[in-house]
Amino acid sequence: MDVYFSPLACSMATRIALAEAGGSANLIEIDPISKTLLATGEDYFAINPLGYVPMLRTDGGELLSENSAILQYVADRFPGSGLAPPTSDRLGRAKLQQWLCFIGTELHKSLMTPLLDSKASDEVKAYAVRRYESRLGYLDQYLAGREFLLDRFTVADAYLATVLGWTQATPQIELTKYPAVKAYLARMRERPSVAAALGVEIPLFRAEIARHKAA
Amino acid sequence: MDVYFSPLACSMATRIALAEAGGSANLIEIDPISKTLLATGEDYFAINPLGYVPMLRTDGGELLSENSAILQYVADRFPGSGLAPPTSDRLGRAKLQQWLCFIGTELHKSLMTPLLDSKASDEVKAYAVRRYESRLGYLDQYLAGREFLLDRFTVADAYLATVLGWTQATPQIELTKYPAVKAYLARMRERPSVAAALGVEIPLFRAEIARHKAA
Repeated sequence: MDVYFSPLACSMATRIALAEAGGSANLIEIDPISKTLLATGEDYFAINPLGYVPMLRTDGGELLSENSAILQYVADRFPGSGLAPPTSDRLGRAKLQQWLCFIGTELHKSLMTPLLDSKASDEVKAYAVRRYESRLGYLDQYLAGREFLLDRFTVADAYLATVLGWTQATPQIELTKYPAVKAYLARMRERPSVAAALGVEIPLFRAEIARHKAA
Repeated sequence: MDVYFSPLACSMATRIALAEAGGSANLIEIDPISKTLLATGEDYFAINPLGYVPMLRTDGGELLSENSAILQYVADRFPGSGLAPPTSDRLGRAKLQQWLCFIGTELHKSLMTPLLDSKASDEVKAYAVRRYESRLGYLDQYLAGREFLLDRFTVADAYLATVLGWTQATPQIELTKYPAVKAYLARMRERPSVAAALGVEIPLFRAEIARHKAA
């Protein structure tokens, strides 16, 4: 199984999920500016025409894109991991999908992507905050008194921990206004799978920045 | 089963899916401005604190939000419908989730939502087009020679037909540039489930506009 990733991108959720499952994969780094495989210089667009990560290649050679599909695929590949409610638990799985979709559409793409985009103007960023910051308020209420999004750690937590981590780079969002979210993120960062993923990806991210500055 | 919807919103995908499955649900209209139940005036925020549609209430009284979760729930509720690959087909289901996620994150939220938002400035709309219109080019290449997103009609088609229909209200996007997408949408509109959904929801949408103008 191959997983194409860029440091600290949403692909980190798959790294966290693999660590939780005790599973392994061939993690292949993509430079997000040149859209090439860092190790070989190959064109990443030839693998994913959309150019973004994550992308997964199954052992059978099938390509799969989009974070919530990949995360559920990994969870189901390691069914003993408890990273997703079993598909026989229709409502449990639906609740997992609800959270994956909420994180992907409301938090990741609508709120965080414009804030992290150096090509987005202040007006674009202000629109994202105005329209979508309320999602953090909703999440804060939901997380108060809860340890995880569902009743145990799932791939939705791997995704949420990854996305919330980006708030370190978005001064527009003050996490102190959302104490339950802030406490959740702090708990997640202490979790061995998340701490290990950050331990690998933060240095890779710094190297990426240094490469781009040198270029 | 209750489904909360607003006319021509992404909740229409659930109406289409129900028609395809020969299933029924209690469809409850939400006014998207006042965020109230149209029939009773009840506060919709009391049902969905996020205020958006769709929302589904199962026969057991459980609430479920987020389009891709609801669509898969409906597909699995009517397993004979073929609206989703069975969960035992892990890769098939993952491919469905890939498309649901792509439509939700790239097309719906990133491209179409800002274009349809009367509170989004021209600059915000231009950013959405600049960054995300390429997704239609990708989709166009994928759909060339294909009838559906997967090998038969699924809930992903119900969602895509709904989202593409919005391009009637977004002059920024010229569908003629994407002939396979345009032909797909035309085929979908001729499909009885989609035609019936539009037949119900277009008049409701016009009534909604008239109500807001009168207010």
